Amino acid sequence: MVDKKRILSGMRPTGALHLGNYLGALANWVEMQETYDCFFFVADWHALTSDYENPADMGQYVREILLDWLSAGLDPEKCTLFVQSKIPEHAELFLILSMITPVPWLERNPTYKDQIVQLQNKDLSTFGFLGYPVLQAADIIMYKAQGVPVGVDQVPHVEITREIARRFNHLYGPVFPEPDAILTRTPKILGLDRRKMSKSYGNAIYLSDSPEAIRTKVMQMVTDPQRMRRSDPGNPDVCNVFEFHKLYTDPAATATIHKQCRGAEIGCVECKKIMAENLIKGLAPIHERRRYYLERPDLVDQIVAEGNTKARRVAQQTMQEVRAAIKIDY
Amino acid sequence: MVDKKRILSGMRPTGALHLGNYLGALANWVEMQETYDCFFFVADWHALTSDYENPADMGQYVREILLDWLSAGLDPEKCTLFVQSKIPEHAELFLILSMITPVPWLERNPTYKDQIVQLQNKDLSTFGFLGYPVLQAADIIMYKAQGVPVGVDQVPHVEITREIARRFNHLYGPVFPEPDAILTRTPKILGLDRRKMSKSYGNAIYLSDSPEAIRTKVMQMVTDPQRMRRSDPGNPDVCNVFEFHKLYTDPAATATIHKQCRGAEIGCVECKKIMAENLIKGLAPIHERRRYYLERPDLVDQIVAEGNTKARRVAQQTMQEVRAAIKIDY
Repeated sequence: MVDKKRILSGMRPTGALHLGNYLGALANWVEMQETYDCFFFVADWHALTSDYENPADMGQYVREILLDWLSAGLDPEKCTLFVQSKIPEHAELFLILSMITPVPWLERNPTYKDQIVQLQNKDLSTFGFLGYPVLQAADIIMYKAQGVPVGVDQVPHVEITREIARRFNHLYGPVFPEPDAILTRTPKILGLDRRKMSKSYGNAIYLSDSPEAIRTKVMQMVTDPQRMRRSDPGNPDVCNVFEFHKLYTDPAATATIHKQCRGAEIGCVECKKIMAENLIKGLAPIHERRRYYLERPDLVDQIVAEGNTKARRVAQQTMQEVRAAIKIDY
Repeated sequence: MVDKKRILSGMRPTGALHLGNYLGALANWVEMQETYDCFFFVADWHALTSDYENPADMGQYVREILLDWLSAGLDPEKCTLFVQSKIPEHAELFLILSMITPVPWLERNPTYKDQIVQLQNKDLSTFGFLGYPVLQAADIIMYKAQGVPVGVDQVPHVEITREIARRFNHLYGPVFPEPDAILTRTPKILGLDRRKMSKSYGNAIYLSDSPEAIRTKVMQMVTDPQRMRRSDPGNPDVCNVFEFHKLYTDPAATATIHKQCRGAEIGCVECKKIMAENLIKGLAPIHERRRYYLERPDLVDQIVAEGNTKARRVAQQTMQEVRAAIKIDY
């Protein structure tokens, strides 16, 4: 344990996780728990930054995401799973880091600008939304994480975290390591309609979808838009269904499908049927673990309670060092 | 106790308190403890908003201000004295209120604009400085204070607090009362050089100044600038020394001095000598209490520990209601 590099990552609890979430992050976490000292947290305070007007199901969402994580294969023996709002030290460190973070660092954050534009139906011009990277920095450096697994679009956030850590260390002495962004491979799968898979687009396949639901959804998937008729040759390299084959169908069969599609020897319906069954098979271990944990709600409670306790111990130790460094204790 | 209206106020620990602090706020607090359920706190986290680069003496400053408060006559039997950073719930409520506070409410805050201009030698364009009124709102509504004693320049801050409380109640249900600003009389005394009395101007008379120091400082005071010679008639109505007489010399003697000054029957040196002795006499009970507490450092520790405990109990209760209202608990 001692020699393992510590990493930290979190997800907002915004409802059931879909394949995009799984392949984009969770599957990497499951791999990483074998080689890193992992802290994974449910970012429920973060969820308030964009959903502050409708937090009605937050508690329910927290339970759901924990169930999804455990179903996906996160092993509480190997990693620490916890809930952000149960570790009040995050709020305290957020407050302290607020004092040393220049507003321009936040205003130039590309995610901030993007989201303001993308989510125009929500009023995001709040102080908390502007300070999202400060809270994220607090989350990360609280555990002295050396690495943060992220997709490429999150790299600027890790950069702000590094800058904030550096500024703290410069002002008050060396307390925090500067975490590295650990770039994770991001799969190219899209939603049913070929847009980014997203809960809000209604185009997602969920980890908790039943085999029947998966079959129905796969049948709705948009394939190569240029292939109008069964007799047209298709281009698997631009087909979203084929991306799923690459992940869930064995390589030999995948190669065959590639060839058959190009030669119009296989139709989209048949191709989808094969993919759907392989996807269902691929998700079977996840479905099995889900059933296991669904039958044992107390076990889930116990796992997260233990994770919270462990995380809090680390956070309290860090905050003692922080208070000593800024000499706020009397 | 139950029927008393609750008020809350705080001061930043930035070193020894001077007469401006005392007459501008503390003297009012001492009066108010007789009729209100008072919570007074040392705003050490707030002090980081402008002094984040030099918090070297924060712990020492906290001790000093508590000693000044007790010396001035705050009675721990009558009011609750506590230290902000010892109540981590303030940070949590700050974080939650951040999510619902629009940035423009903060940018239009007149104090924000003023201080940015006034303190140009400090880099105040921090996220925490922008969010100063959010933290202040958290401090106030945490205790469900119905009133906040303030000078007129602080009224906009109380207005932001009311707006934030209203927004919270609107979004999540009625948790917080909207506090009223209680306007306190502010005396017209100035510093030795006729500028506003301020530690940073080096023109202050401190509550902890010895009689000898007070005599020396009073002798340095700038009087009516139009009175060049002893034989010139003076104008007590524009004289800072005379403002002190009004507060510390008995009314009959004050009336006499007023007349004598106008008639050039008394010189500034003599007038100052009288004032200095009366000021020293006026501050004697404060000096006496200071000696009492200085000899009993454990008592001061105990008083603030008890205050912290009492404040924290209230804060924990409030945060339970807040978490239930925003449904973040699982």
